[in-house]
Amino acid sequence: MYTPDFASEINIRKAKIVAALKAMNTDAILIGTNVNNYYIAGRVFSGYVYINSEGFMHYYVKRPALLKGDNVTYIRKPEDIPALLQQAGVALPATIALEMNFMSYSDVTRLAKSFPEATPTNGSAIMSYVRSTKTAYEIEKIRRSAQGHMSVYKNLQGIYHPGMTDVELQIEIEARLRRAGCLGIFRVAGPSMEVFMGSLISGDNADNPSPYDFAMGGAGLDSSLPGGCNGTVIEPGMSTMVDLCGNFTGYMSDISRTYSVGTMSELAQKAHNCSVAIHHALMEMARPGVKASDIYNLSRTMAEEAGLGEYFMGHNQQAGFVGHGVGIEINESPVLAPRSRDVLEAGNVIAFEPKFVIPGTGAVGIENTYLITADGIENLTDFTEEIMPLD
Amino acid sequence: MYTPDFASEINIRKAKIVAALKAMNTDAILIGTNVNNYYIAGRVFSGYVYINSEGFMHYYVKRPALLKGDNVTYIRKPEDIPALLQQAGVALPATIALEMNFMSYSDVTRLAKSFPEATPTNGSAIMSYVRSTKTAYEIEKIRRSAQGHMSVYKNLQGIYHPGMTDVELQIEIEARLRRAGCLGIFRVAGPSMEVFMGSLISGDNADNPSPYDFAMGGAGLDSSLPGGCNGTVIEPGMSTMVDLCGNFTGYMSDISRTYSVGTMSELAQKAHNCSVAIHHALMEMARPGVKASDIYNLSRTMAEEAGLGEYFMGHNQQAGFVGHGVGIEINESPVLAPRSRDVLEAGNVIAFEPKFVIPGTGAVGIENTYLITADGIENLTDFTEEIMPLD
Repeated sequence: MYTPDFASEINIRKAKIVAALKAMNTDAILIGTNVNNYYIAGRVFSGYVYINSEGFMHYYVKRPALLKGDNVTYIRKPEDIPALLQQAGVALPATIALEMNFMSYSDVTRLAKSFPEATPTNGSAIMSYVRSTKTAYEIEKIRRSAQGHMSVYKNLQGIYHPGMTDVELQIEIEARLRRAGCLGIFRVAGPSMEVFMGSLISGDNADNPSPYDFAMGGAGLDSSLPGGCNGTVIEPGMSTMVDLCGNFTGYMSDISRTYSVGTMSELAQKAHNCSVAIHHALMEMARPGVKASDIYNLSRTMAEEAGLGEYFMGHNQQAGFVGHGVGIEINESPVLAPRSRDVLEAGNVIAFEPKFVIPGTGAVGIENTYLITADGIENLTDFTEEIMPLD
Repeated sequence: MYTPDFASEINIRKAKIVAALKAMNTDAILIGTNVNNYYIAGRVFSGYVYINSEGFMHYYVKRPALLKGDNVTYIRKPEDIPALLQQAGVALPATIALEMNFMSYSDVTRLAKSFPEATPTNGSAIMSYVRSTKTAYEIEKIRRSAQGHMSVYKNLQGIYHPGMTDVELQIEIEARLRRAGCLGIFRVAGPSMEVFMGSLISGDNADNPSPYDFAMGGAGLDSSLPGGCNGTVIEPGMSTMVDLCGNFTGYMSDISRTYSVGTMSELAQKAHNCSVAIHHALMEMARPGVKASDIYNLSRTMAEEAGLGEYFMGHNQQAGFVGHGVGIEINESPVLAPRSRDVLEAGNVIAFEPKFVIPGTGAVGIENTYLITADGIENLTDFTEEIMPLD
């Protein structure tokens, strides 16, 4: 069991934020969203965290009354913060970063008005960049999620019965994940991509477009949540792509595996094998300094050279990426996409998901979660890459 | 089966928005969040809906390419909208309402810049008010959710076994809800109140404060999601408050019932009966025109007159409300709180949850979902109000 001193862990994270503030010429950041409060406090609370470029950090907490320490003050409203800073002898900032991409217009405006002398800047990019390289403590959390996640994926036999639908199968896997310790909640940055516990897609439902920027679509069961399983009866020869929630620790692993009843078409087998080959190419290529766009381009090139370009990342509607950072949320940096400017760094944790949609069969391929190390890459989800039988 | 012409349903909703725009002296609203897109389109999509006070409405869709009609145009970015309006002969607005409370600062700013001649105003209140009175179609959706929700709550026998924890019980109820058709997703307006599939709280965990503004707290299982069940072993004499997800149709019902193994203390029984009595008082009192604050005040007065004031809506940390609107999201208008300015209207659907936390026993009381009718109130979740045995 990995048990660091959590105060020193917080200091590591704070130092990363302070370095980013300096690099951006920003005096301070005022954080207030759940995910970033969790990042810098180690727990979700209602309130704010103020960090300045000189290394001052203080928690301004509305509730619960469970946080203790010299660096915690309980407040009723954010307008109280500037006076408290001045009482503590901390100079007010000339520029203040706020989470403009993920906090509401009303909330950001209210925080900005609390610091009328400061120029507000967008702090979302700062937090996104800081969180894109994980600490050893965070990596251990993702490893533990991956262990629980894999333990369920390895043992799906005994659930399927003839006539079963995709949603019936998904519900039983959800329950197994929950019993194995999955917290259930699937955090996606931004409000526009809603998902319950991930996606399970059987057969041609893989080619139904959804509003969401996920690798595979799916029609969904209801117009209020149009993505994922749609009631398809699982038939022999059809693929079932399982891409469900791996949040066991507050940090998510992201794993997809392809399952089937009976054998699938040769084309689907070939595409699945191409996905595995692209993963192996990633393992050869990925290290700090490699461009995220180059990984996308290599993946697409390998798909095209195998004659599978028209099925790569979808058929009717193709996704414009092949992987993404993962951590507290499922869609972190770096983004592995053709126009991405991201460059791999040690500590990045990426979900890599070169998938194919084969008409008449469905989605095939695999998704693993990888750690970029100082000199290469480590697969955090190393288990069978083959198509697995449901029956 | 209730099958209205959906186009006429959309027209009813549009007319409500147009009336609200006129009442607020606002020329137009540009909607872009999932819940409000769903409200006015009947399905979630990525894109925007423009409605002006003269009754013009148009969908500007990014994806999926499934929406059809004269009033649908596919766009790549919101900056395209003003030119498309002008091409359609629609005058650009002088004031434009945007969803400032629930859309990010960056997104609202981008939309506002697309209409440089217009003064942006806060459209969140407009949509919150419009959605607070449900149409017949929406009420039918809530009735169907309530039917599925009740069918599970009525039949929890056979799950419990001695030594079972709260989370083990919750997972099995979650699976039963899902098998009964629950979509799983629990929509809460705003990003700060995160919850997976609702809350199940046993024993003194009810008195653990959470960061969230929910009626009952609970420590949760992980610091990343600090609310709800915490691994408490369910013992005889302890209460278990079940308050889980009732989203079967895109519209949620909200129901809580108290379960126990063996009998609870006299004080807990008395408090449970007081909750039921407060519900019966609501049934006598509620009708259009009644102040939401008066309902809160009556509830608190009844609790205090029964000598239960210190346990009402929590013990260590008390919630500041006794009920709330419910529909697409769990926290809609009206709010039944002491300082609420809301007044009941026909078509309001409210979750009413006068609960008590009894030290040594846990949370007791019930929550029902009610419809405010033209001349009174209807209980949409009418089934046993008694404490139910788990064993």
